[in-house]
Amino acid sequence: MKLVTFQTAGDPRLGCLAAGKVVDLTLAYEAMLQERGRTKARALAGVLVPPDMIDFLDGEGDSLAAAAEVFEWVTGKGFSAGAVRGLDIVLPLADVRLLAPVARPRKIICAGKNYWDAIRERGEKAPEEPKIFSKFANSVCSWDDDVIRPRMTRELGYEAELAVVIGRRCKHVPLERAYEVVAGYMTYNDITAGDLTKRDGQNTRGKGFDTFSVMGPFLATRDEIADPQALGVRLSVNGRVLQDSSTSHLVFDVPRLVSFCSEVFTLEPGDVIATGSPRGLAKDYDPPAFLLPGDLMETEIVGLGTCRNRIAEED
Amino acid sequence: MKLVTFQTAGDPRLGCLAAGKVVDLTLAYEAMLQERGRTKARALAGVLVPPDMIDFLDGEGDSLAAAAEVFEWVTGKGFSAGAVRGLDIVLPLADVRLLAPVARPRKIICAGKNYWDAIRERGEKAPEEPKIFSKFANSVCSWDDDVIRPRMTRELGYEAELAVVIGRRCKHVPLERAYEVVAGYMTYNDITAGDLTKRDGQNTRGKGFDTFSVMGPFLATRDEIADPQALGVRLSVNGRVLQDSSTSHLVFDVPRLVSFCSEVFTLEPGDVIATGSPRGLAKDYDPPAFLLPGDLMETEIVGLGTCRNRIAEED
Repeated sequence: MKLVTFQTAGDPRLGCLAAGKVVDLTLAYEAMLQERGRTKARALAGVLVPPDMIDFLDGEGDSLAAAAEVFEWVTGKGFSAGAVRGLDIVLPLADVRLLAPVARPRKIICAGKNYWDAIRERGEKAPEEPKIFSKFANSVCSWDDDVIRPRMTRELGYEAELAVVIGRRCKHVPLERAYEVVAGYMTYNDITAGDLTKRDGQNTRGKGFDTFSVMGPFLATRDEIADPQALGVRLSVNGRVLQDSSTSHLVFDVPRLVSFCSEVFTLEPGDVIATGSPRGLAKDYDPPAFLLPGDLMETEIVGLGTCRNRIAEED
Repeated sequence: MKLVTFQTAGDPRLGCLAAGKVVDLTLAYEAMLQERGRTKARALAGVLVPPDMIDFLDGEGDSLAAAAEVFEWVTGKGFSAGAVRGLDIVLPLADVRLLAPVARPRKIICAGKNYWDAIRERGEKAPEEPKIFSKFANSVCSWDDDVIRPRMTRELGYEAELAVVIGRRCKHVPLERAYEVVAGYMTYNDITAGDLTKRDGQNTRGKGFDTFSVMGPFLATRDEIADPQALGVRLSVNGRVLQDSSTSHLVFDVPRLVSFCSEVFTLEPGDVIATGSPRGLAKDYDPPAFLLPGDLMETEIVGLGTCRNRIAEED
C-alpha cells in the first residue's frame, strides 16, 4: 500500500493511493464493518485504523493488517465504496492535499557518509560503523511545501535519501530480524545549511531548521519494495540533474542501519531513519550548486514518488 | 509551584509539591469547580489542567493560570481538600512515585562548552555563539531510576546542568522577551558515553542512549526562581563531590540560549533546553571518574531538587 496523510476540509486523514484515487482508510474500515453487521463500527475504526499516521502505526501489525484487509475490500468494489455519514470513502486524488506522511515523527535519525560513490569521489575512507545524527519533528516538510532558507545561512544544500519508517517498538534488533520492524519507505531530503554544520561541528543547528526534512508524497509499506538496496536516487534543481545514483551504493544497508540504531535508542512506530545521500552534493560542484530562493527542487527515490519543493526566503 | 508527574495506581498524574504532600491538580481543579457550582467540572479540568504534563503545558498561560488558581484554593483549605469520586486530592509524598516531570519532551536541546570555569580549566576559548546538540525522548530518565551503562561504552560520564522547560509555542524570540516563553526549570544530567562522542564526532549516539537524560524530581515554575543565573550546581558520586559550581559561570545565559534555539527550531511547550555543565567532568579527573555499575550519582541544582540515580549494567 501507498499510505498517505491527506486533507480536504477538517483534520488530516489516513489514506491509501490507488488508481489515481485516495481511499479514506478509517471511513472505509467503518463501512466494511457496517456491511458485515458489526456493532461499534466507527469506534473500532477509530482504534484500529485511526486517522493520524503515528496513532495508526502505534497499532503495529494489527493496524497494518486491518488496513490491508480494508484496502482489499475497497479494491473488490472497484473503488466505488460509497459514503459513510455523508463522507465519501474514495476521493479523486486531485480533490485532496497530500501532507507529509508522518507529520510528527518522535525521531528522525540520519546516516552520514553512507554512499560508496560519494566517499570515492571525495577520496575519503568509509566509516567502520554507521555515523548518525538527528533532527526533530519541527523540521518536517511536506512533499510540495516550500523549503525555507534561514537568514543564518548562505550555503543551503540538498541530500536525496531513502528513508525507512519504523513500524514496531523495539530495542536491540538483530540484523536478521531488522526488516520485521520496518513499516515502509519514503523519499526523503536531508536539507542542510553547510556553512553552519561546518562552523558548529555538530549537525544539530545546520540540519535542524524548520522545513529541513522533506518527505513524501507517500509511505510505501514494506511489501511494496522488493529490495530497498536497488532503488534509483535522483535529485534535480530547475531541471538540472545533480544527483543520479542508486541505493545499491549504500555502505550500511537498511538492516544494518536499523539494527545499529536499535542498539542506541528504543525505536518506536513512525521513527524515521534516513539512509544518507549519494554523490552530487551542492558543495561538490564547481561552482557550488547551493539552493537559492525561487529554485524548484525535485527529489525522487524511484518507486517512492517525487517531492517537488520550491525554495523560499525566510521572512 | 513545584510541578510533578506522579503515579500511585493507574496512569501518571499531574501534581504539585507542597508541605510534604502532593496535590493532584486535575482532581483539585474539578473539586474547586464543583464547589463553585460549575457544570462540566470534570471535563473542564481534563482540558485546562490535564494529567499529562505536555498536554498541560500545551495549554500555555491558560493552564498555568488555572493551576496557580487551584493551588491557592488548596492552600486556603490547609491542604485538606477531601476527595473526588473516592479519589484523594492531596496525598502524602511518601505514598506516590515521582516520575520524570516531562516524560516525553518533543525536543531536548543541549548546550555544550557553556561554562567559563570548564573552559578556563581546559585552556579552551569560549565559543562565539551557543554550541548545541540534541537528544530524543527515549533518553528520559526519572530522578531516581537507574541510569543504564550501555555495553558499547566504557567511558560513561555525568554532566550536571540547569534545564529550562519551554512553556509557549514560539519562533524568533527576541532576547528581551525570552523569559516569557519559559515555563520553568529542572535539575538535569546530560549522561554521556565519552568514548563514543569522541569516536563519532557527532553527539547523537554517545549522548542519545535510553536513560541518558536524567531530570527531576520536579519542574519549578519560572516565578519560583528569582535568577536562574545564580544557582548552585553540584554532582557527587558515592558521596565524593565531583562538580561544585554555579550557573553564574554560564557563557550564554538562559535568555540567550532560548532566543538562539528559537532562531533554529519552532519551540513547543515541554521542550527542554539543557544549559551545559561546569568544570569537574569525569574525563578531567586523573584518574578519570567514569561512572561504574553500582555507583550512586547525586545531581543537584540548588533550589530545584536532587536526582539520585544508581548506575546499572545493561542486560
